[in-house]
Amino acid sequence: MAKVIVDVSMSLDGFVAGPNVRAAEPMGDGGERLHAWMGAGGPDGPIHARERTLVNGAVGATIVGRTTFDLGHAPWGGTPWPGIPAFVVTHRPQQGFVGANGGKFSFGGLTEAVEWAKEAAGSKDALVLGPDIARQLIGLRLADELWIHLVPILLGAGTRLLAGIEAELAPLWEPVGRTVTHLHYAVVRP
Amino acid sequence: MAKVIVDVSMSLDGFVAGPNVRAAEPMGDGGERLHAWMGAGGPDGPIHARERTLVNGAVGATIVGRTTFDLGHAPWGGTPWPGIPAFVVTHRPQQGFVGANGGKFSFGGLTEAVEWAKEAAGSKDALVLGPDIARQLIGLRLADELWIHLVPILLGAGTRLLAGIEAELAPLWEPVGRTVTHLHYAVVRP
Repeated sequence: MAKVIVDVSMSLDGFVAGPNVRAAEPMGDGGERLHAWMGAGGPDGPIHARERTLVNGAVGATIVGRTTFDLGHAPWGGTPWPGIPAFVVTHRPQQGFVGANGGKFSFGGLTEAVEWAKEAAGSKDALVLGPDIARQLIGLRLADELWIHLVPILLGAGTRLLAGIEAELAPLWEPVGRTVTHLHYAVVRP
Repeated sequence: MAKVIVDVSMSLDGFVAGPNVRAAEPMGDGGERLHAWMGAGGPDGPIHARERTLVNGAVGATIVGRTTFDLGHAPWGGTPWPGIPAFVVTHRPQQGFVGANGGKFSFGGLTEAVEWAKEAAGSKDALVLGPDIARQLIGLRLADELWIHLVPILLGAGTRLLAGIEAELAPLWEPVGRTVTHLHYAVVRP
């Protein structure tokens, strides 16, 4: 059965975006530094390839927060992964919205979106995009795994991934990565 | 010259103590779980030995926050490391205080305490004890290294180590540890 996976780059002080997230800067002020490790070169190149293989292997559907949809995919028009259905968690459905490339978007409540995404993912998994949704899913034990790319910077302010939820995590693999540390956990108890 | 080292166990959501820190529970509610990895057994036993060697090799002096002193070392009477002088950061000096085992405590402002500790440490290093002091020292670039033992639990609430300060960190070693991830960084830019 499809797993629900949260996969996110986080600063050592716990931020997944800088302050002032907005359409022109969807990662907030300075937040793009969290994704610098994804560049082809650099000391983490081969590790990024491994991560990309993991992620691409996983994605059979995406579960997308409303803010992430509004800031990213509504203006871009395409689903987060081309050809992969996106399920947007919202109380304000936007029925009939079709991505620029024919991307398939569905809109629903949290548990609906998760059910639909797991069904659509089939033998693959469902990736969660958006920190508020990710936090809720971890807290409700609806997320099965938490993959964190821990970036050695202190942003000082921004959007936190984790606050106000309790859980125990079980490491799935040894951590890897000299610069950015790639951590893979199962969520074992909310 | 002696380095100033922050060495702390932190939950994945950034807490170094649980809520309601008090004399009876200096680690706060549930906070002792952050130190469970230090037990002799368990999957991280050999790694703990490595960490202990690192720490014991480092300690020529300690820089102690006032809350940590009040909660721990004032009642216990001894310095954090037997025979090693402790420098307590405070605006309320407690001159003449002597630890139960003749432990040497000095009291002063932040920069004073750091200067005294580095001098006292000689060819060893100065360890920082107390999250508020640690955060200030990292933000002011008065801490040289940050050692984090990242524990795979979400406490949900408590005392955060890192908030409101900006810095870049440079990894000193590859991360190790399957359960708890031991991370060692140099603080390179505030």
